[in-house]
Amino acid sequence: MTLMTDPAAELAPRILAGERRALARAITLVESGRADHRAQATALLERLASAGKQALRIGLSGTPGVGKSTFIESFGMMLVRQGLKVAVLAVDPSSARSGGSILGDKTRMERLSREPNAFIRPSPSQAQLGGVARRTREAVSLCEAAGFDVVLIETVGVGQSETLVAEMTDLFILLMAPAGGDELQGVKRGIMEMADMILVNKADGDLKPAALRTMSDYAGALRLLRKRPQDPEGFPKAVAVSALAEEGLKAAWEDMGALTAWRRENGHFDRRRAEQARHWFETEVREGLLARLQSDPEIRAQMQALGSAVAEGQTAPAAAAAEMLAALQR
Amino acid sequence: MTLMTDPAAELAPRILAGERRALARAITLVESGRADHRAQATALLERLASAGKQALRIGLSGTPGVGKSTFIESFGMMLVRQGLKVAVLAVDPSSARSGGSILGDKTRMERLSREPNAFIRPSPSQAQLGGVARRTREAVSLCEAAGFDVVLIETVGVGQSETLVAEMTDLFILLMAPAGGDELQGVKRGIMEMADMILVNKADGDLKPAALRTMSDYAGALRLLRKRPQDPEGFPKAVAVSALAEEGLKAAWEDMGALTAWRRENGHFDRRRAEQARHWFETEVREGLLARLQSDPEIRAQMQALGSAVAEGQTAPAAAAAEMLAALQR
Repeated sequence: MTLMTDPAAELAPRILAGERRALARAITLVESGRADHRAQATALLERLASAGKQALRIGLSGTPGVGKSTFIESFGMMLVRQGLKVAVLAVDPSSARSGGSILGDKTRMERLSREPNAFIRPSPSQAQLGGVARRTREAVSLCEAAGFDVVLIETVGVGQSETLVAEMTDLFILLMAPAGGDELQGVKRGIMEMADMILVNKADGDLKPAALRTMSDYAGALRLLRKRPQDPEGFPKAVAVSALAEEGLKAAWEDMGALTAWRRENGHFDRRRAEQARHWFETEVREGLLARLQSDPEIRAQMQALGSAVAEGQTAPAAAAAEMLAALQR
Repeated sequence: MTLMTDPAAELAPRILAGERRALARAITLVESGRADHRAQATALLERLASAGKQALRIGLSGTPGVGKSTFIESFGMMLVRQGLKVAVLAVDPSSARSGGSILGDKTRMERLSREPNAFIRPSPSQAQLGGVARRTREAVSLCEAAGFDVVLIETVGVGQSETLVAEMTDLFILLMAPAGGDELQGVKRGIMEMADMILVNKADGDLKPAALRTMSDYAGALRLLRKRPQDPEGFPKAVAVSALAEEGLKAAWEDMGALTAWRRENGHFDRRRAEQARHWFETEVREGLLARLQSDPEIRAQMQALGSAVAEGQTAPAAAAAEMLAALQR
């Protein structure tokens, strides 16, 4: 990153003007682990928040092989053709281990990546899921400030990442493949309960009958779930699409629109956003408090010393903890 | 609890003298959520720690129906007959919900509860697993100071409670029932890996052949696990016992003794205790830090106010969190 004396003052107007390079730089800034970068990122986000721009935030989850890249490419292109600006981000806690990234290869979305009204940001390698979450949340805010209408957040269908993505989006979409037999794929109940829509992809060619059957299986399973107050009649919903043949995507987008409109009218949309913002604030305070134990050299040394005294039996854990907590409060 | 001007000064010598009523009172003190009680409990534990008394801490896990109560009764009676003092504690995070307690009914261990050299403490209702953990750890320390030779910590075989118990004990024992078919019961791999011994109970009467078969199934499964540095040849081990017929208990106790002696000789015993103590210290510091967000009325009010500002979109989560963290550091 080139030297900027005051990145918040410099980048803010450029981001608000929709300048992509400024957006990319700002995302690099929020991704940085350095303390001075963090302070700059916080100042920038605060400056942009007052603009109050909003995008529709859509979380998209699906295990490898369901055709997520093809779907994002086709779905994104359809939105762009409707005159909308689309940003694509990724939450991929596995990338730290594998070294790879689910969005690392932009060639997976060749057409979309060339669109001036589309912005694709690969998931960086990062060790800790908490860090990934904050980075992504803040990248979403930056994309909103830059005037994007839709922010798609892709995640692989494993572990806690779905919950994280659901906690930062307005809609949570599950992309599935046609099932081989007459059984539902092993979707965890908890993930089904988070989904606003299930899209069964690959409803084309030989797989179409299987996709339609799978879709109606999921529709049946969704009907068995308890009705959520944030859903109008008919939601959560399962539909069949073909990302490859670009079929069913418009209808799915219209469904998303209808759901969002209903939630806006009934106050659920704003309430959810408010709850999410409060949740992220509280999470950051908790993480920040705990991070001090590691980041402050003086505190860290005291933790080490007291920990060793406890390990050697010179003092009881409770007494040592009380001493440490008193020191932290000074 | 009667009024004590300085419980630490009053209770400490009585506990060290092995007075059961003082022990029971001290456990009630560590269980209390009141801030003044907490300070007294910390002072008491610190005073007792310097005595440096140790018991063998044995964790015992098993799902309902495997005969845990009968086992503790028979095993405890055998230890008492050998002249040992035995304390029995419980970690039961479910008791908060169910209102019941796995050790609530002392009639489950009628003989043992009448023994002057045995001490049984039921699990109190407590909402949070973290709180249960601290309470139990501290109760273990109190029992050690009171001169008990063996502290048995019982837990139900569900969720995180096994990990907690394993983190506060020297030996972790899994009690199992004979399996119906030729398949192993659904023991999670993680729990198998924590076990130092698997005892297959009910090796009596009609169930004896099934118990022996189950025992050898587990022995085979244990051999497939990676060898741990803290285990001598032949451990972890699966054996068959009958708590009802009081068979195999002595042999199991001798196995535990051999394992413990080996670990003491090879430094594993002390190292593990030291690691556990350090772990608990660090956990208490973290929990104490986070608890301040709730317990300090001024901090709580500021969290509320900033949280509402964030929810209403007046400030960004990151900026509000930075403000809160700065206030906490003052």
